[in-house]
Amino acid sequence: MSNEAKIPYKIYLSEDEIPKQWYNVRADMKNKPAPLLNPGTLNPMSFDELRPVFCDELIKQELDDTTAYIDIPQEIQDFYKMYRPSPLVRAYCLEKALDTPAKIYYKFEGNNTSGSHKLNSAIVQAYYAKQQGLKGVTTETGAGQWGTALSMASAYLGIDCKVYMVKVSYEQKPFRREVMRTYGASVTPSPSMDTEIGRKINAEHPGTTGSLGCAISEAVEVATKTEGYRYVLGSVLNQVLLHQSVIGLEAKAALDKYGIKPDVVIGCAGGGSNLGGLISPFMGEKLRGEQDYRIVAVEPASCPSFTRGKFAYDFCDTGMVCPLAKMYTLGSNFIPSANHAGGLRYHGMSPVLSQLYHDGYMEAISVEQTSVFEAAEQFARVEGILPAPESSHAIRAAIDEALKCKETGEEKTILFGLTGTGYFDMVAYQKFNDGEMSDYIPTDAELEASFAKLPKVD
Amino acid sequence: MSNEAKIPYKIYLSEDEIPKQWYNVRADMKNKPAPLLNPGTLNPMSFDELRPVFCDELIKQELDDTTAYIDIPQEIQDFYKMYRPSPLVRAYCLEKALDTPAKIYYKFEGNNTSGSHKLNSAIVQAYYAKQQGLKGVTTETGAGQWGTALSMASAYLGIDCKVYMVKVSYEQKPFRREVMRTYGASVTPSPSMDTEIGRKINAEHPGTTGSLGCAISEAVEVATKTEGYRYVLGSVLNQVLLHQSVIGLEAKAALDKYGIKPDVVIGCAGGGSNLGGLISPFMGEKLRGEQDYRIVAVEPASCPSFTRGKFAYDFCDTGMVCPLAKMYTLGSNFIPSANHAGGLRYHGMSPVLSQLYHDGYMEAISVEQTSVFEAAEQFARVEGILPAPESSHAIRAAIDEALKCKETGEEKTILFGLTGTGYFDMVAYQKFNDGEMSDYIPTDAELEASFAKLPKVD
Repeated sequence: MSNEAKIPYKIYLSEDEIPKQWYNVRADMKNKPAPLLNPGTLNPMSFDELRPVFCDELIKQELDDTTAYIDIPQEIQDFYKMYRPSPLVRAYCLEKALDTPAKIYYKFEGNNTSGSHKLNSAIVQAYYAKQQGLKGVTTETGAGQWGTALSMASAYLGIDCKVYMVKVSYEQKPFRREVMRTYGASVTPSPSMDTEIGRKINAEHPGTTGSLGCAISEAVEVATKTEGYRYVLGSVLNQVLLHQSVIGLEAKAALDKYGIKPDVVIGCAGGGSNLGGLISPFMGEKLRGEQDYRIVAVEPASCPSFTRGKFAYDFCDTGMVCPLAKMYTLGSNFIPSANHAGGLRYHGMSPVLSQLYHDGYMEAISVEQTSVFEAAEQFARVEGILPAPESSHAIRAAIDEALKCKETGEEKTILFGLTGTGYFDMVAYQKFNDGEMSDYIPTDAELEASFAKLPKVD
Repeated sequence: MSNEAKIPYKIYLSEDEIPKQWYNVRADMKNKPAPLLNPGTLNPMSFDELRPVFCDELIKQELDDTTAYIDIPQEIQDFYKMYRPSPLVRAYCLEKALDTPAKIYYKFEGNNTSGSHKLNSAIVQAYYAKQQGLKGVTTETGAGQWGTALSMASAYLGIDCKVYMVKVSYEQKPFRREVMRTYGASVTPSPSMDTEIGRKINAEHPGTTGSLGCAISEAVEVATKTEGYRYVLGSVLNQVLLHQSVIGLEAKAALDKYGIKPDVVIGCAGGGSNLGGLISPFMGEKLRGEQDYRIVAVEPASCPSFTRGKFAYDFCDTGMVCPLAKMYTLGSNFIPSANHAGGLRYHGMSPVLSQLYHDGYMEAISVEQTSVFEAAEQFARVEGILPAPESSHAIRAAIDEALKCKETGEEKTILFGLTGTGYFDMVAYQKFNDGEMSDYIPTDAELEASFAKLPKVD
């Protein structure tokens, strides 16, 4: 306890201790994630086939499953210094409120204007686009964190940024849109009339409010048809998990300073960018047999790709113009209820995490929306940070673990990822405050209908 | 330059270095700020006269103009550790963008959910209310930062919080309102029908959208008429400047670590809470003749209390139920154009700062809204933080100072206060992005008409 008392509320690394290399967990995986497939030939996508869509250096990172450490360019290291290292917080106040013997830590990635960890990869993808001499990048955004992060990175580097924003979000989250515009991005509601796929979807579904899968299709089309542009993506891809490894590397370095090993590492999971980044160095030790950790993915019960999805090849987008990825998926046609507030609405899951889950290296649980907001409110009131709905899935799971410790008396050390803040999610909080939030769990029949449309590959 | 290179992007103090005492600049002032007057008798308000409105310990702090250092209770120190020390940032990217030889530092107070420095005093006022065995506190809020901060502090301590929110803000900023509700506060649009003064104002001005001065009157009425409640205020008062001295004490400690003396210290000024806190230890050295600093207050041209106001006794509120304060004022009836976005719309100014300005210890300038947003956008794009409109007044002035250095070649060191983030101000940013923002400067005739209604005291 005397040593215990010395742990500050927030463990900050110095700027010198920001990682100088990303860690590529694939290098330590015996079963590598399955390759992306060309949707036409069903053969693995080659470097050359990917070049019209992605920047060259990023394709190299996407395909590299053997190099364990990859240098972070100096300019990106300098950018990281604007908002990193992010704090590792000891949740003393939450522990006290729960009256638990558990020790709770969270890695807080929300202290930057994008409001989340997304900036860690946005700056990298924008950087390599600029290095390649490109004019700009295109992307999609749903909840808006990724679009904001990419706008910020693009403004900093002086390249152009075109964001296709799911129409319902564009209309319901005008402030997110304005943040992106303030950073100089052009923001178009999707489906738009600017693209072939957008016009097709608008014709087939008049009045549609769009989906993430549809916005991806539009952003890819624009990137491939516009001279000097490439497409970038904020989650799912191997390269994104690589960039996000800074979260876990910093968290582990901070814990190592105090000789702390977490018993359980918890992260929310949509496409996997945060979870993959947070767990990477811990998973590395586990894969190499050096240390064991429980690693838990938390997903919404409304969009349960790990816990109820199929491990199969599927399209990454609705328009079926993107490569196929082997992942836990609910089917690229699956659309969770619009009532659900979180940004964890993607039908698929990172191929890296999918393989690790399939091989038994991690667990997954699903939690319901109202219980997530209860946890969010409790956390906000004692820890002082209003969390994003996405992050609050991890809070729910961490609180439940800590309450189990209270029952058993175990002094477990819990680490979770607090990916961001909820300042642009107040419509959802309002629903919760007004008692108008409900839960949504897809039926088996709904999922079976979606699975029936999966492409026949395996 | 070799020593120079060692200064990190963000200078963080350790948690042990958070101030353990507040600094009371009044102790070093030869000409003390004039006392609050009873609006009925025009005699200085005594401790007993203030007791129905304010908590006892806070009245002591309000009236104490001789004790230089006042201990910060341990529970408040612990709360500060949740979000302090705040970073002192070297604005390397802004310097580069401006191509200036100036060295720019800013003390960033926005990395907490209230989004500003207001939490520094909110926790203190809520703490002493709880210590006194009270049930709760009442207050007003305009832009919403103060109401949010007080809601957070009250939730943490488990006391009740009633916020009267200027009606126009209540309607235009529903998300601010929801943050407060998430922290358990009750939020009432002002003028309401709950109070005598509210009913009176509603009857006299049907359809009014309210004002800060009116919301103050309502909050004071509720506090004095409800058993177990007191009123608290986020600016203007001497006690608030005392609590906010943590900003300046931390900033100075961080600069001292690197042997840096700022040539000029710049802060935005509404009621004076941020400016007074930021400058306090620098002003202390100046008052004691130990070191000279240029100290600059920046106010909106639309609400120019320092630069165009009168130094006179005036009411702090519209309902004229509060004590009179001697301050630079535009008249308690003055209401700046609703078009103006900032939260610096208060008609008066801290009596401490007013006296210091009157005695020549600081300068004041006013800046126009569109140029403030230009500075805000430039800053956001290179420094990565989307600033609050209020804070952006200081950014405008700091950039202008740095550009002067570029002309003259002087390597001045500039310190400014970045009080908060603009995430709840996107309506104003949208106006700016759409080219629909305009400037507003009151005419001499408008001001003269307002001055004519000042109470006759001196």
